Amino acid sequence: MAKIRKGVTLTLRLIALAATVVAVVIMVTSKETARVLNLTFTAKFTHTPAFKYYVVAEAIAGLYTVLALLLASKSLLSRLTLILDLVVAMLLTSSISAALAIAQVGKQGNSHAGWLPICGQVPHYCDKLVVSLVAGFVAALVYLLLLLYTLRAALSPVFAIKP
Amino acid sequence: MAKIRKGVTLTLRLIALAATVVAVVIMVTSKETARVLNLTFTAKFTHTPAFKYYVVAEAIAGLYTVLALLLASKSLLSRLTLILDLVVAMLLTSSISAALAIAQVGKQGNSHAGWLPICGQVPHYCDKLVVSLVAGFVAALVYLLLLLYTLRAALSPVFAIKP
Repeated sequence: MAKIRKGVTLTLRLIALAATVVAVVIMVTSKETARVLNLTFTAKFTHTPAFKYYVVAEAIAGLYTVLALLLASKSLLSRLTLILDLVVAMLLTSSISAALAIAQVGKQGNSHAGWLPICGQVPHYCDKLVVSLVAGFVAALVYLLLLLYTLRAALSPVFAIKP
Repeated sequence: MAKIRKGVTLTLRLIALAATVVAVVIMVTSKETARVLNLTFTAKFTHTPAFKYYVVAEAIAGLYTVLALLLASKSLLSRLTLILDLVVAMLLTSSISAALAIAQVGKQGNSHAGWLPICGQVPHYCDKLVVSLVAGFVAALVYLLLLLYTLRAALSPVFAIKP
């Protein structure tokens, strides 16, 4: 049972690590320059605070996942890991939500506020953003699954965590 | 010890309930009409998908908190409550993050995307939004504290939850 639990946790962490790496790399390398009415403008993630937050949050989650994988064998840290898993899951949820909210305005605009969509001008930038956001969504989902799996184990007497 | 735990949980849930109610009521009642260059425009939360999501999420969290308060004595449900607390905490974190991302654009605009700030035109709408978002932030924070408190109790042998 302990082997299965370790296997599931390891698999979920590896998926989360891959997802956060993809999310960060694609977002950081997304950049497109367009000419609109003789004006040149460049779209890149550093222009949007929500996307900067997204990159920082995904990077922190990725680094934490590496640490969690390296320290997986130290049972003394298992309680701390659960708490940190929770905080990282919150961070991932927060960052993907903020980035998605802005991406939605970028895609569809907001006519009431007079904010025009920009994806028509910088389609490749938007395509890359979609890939990054899907990866970020997967990372958040995997951390939720990881937490649910750990909690099920922690609360059921059969799978009780040994300190 | 069980009494202290129940007291802390009850207090945190009551704060969360109050915060979600404030968040929903203030957001739903926030509405302002302004005239800009002979054009009349109205700002209200239904114009922004992120704010609609925010209201729905806070309302769900509020209703869940009422149910959790009513069913607090049924120990059979305590495991389910922990899982649902986690999901509600994620939902609150997600909704406040999405709403904050849009509110930041409303306040400061985004010159790179050509999105102008709107708070200069509808200051009362923005003030109400700030109150609602602070309440939503408190609700998310309280649910995080609730989870940390429950997990500490669940994982420590001294405070073990009895099924």
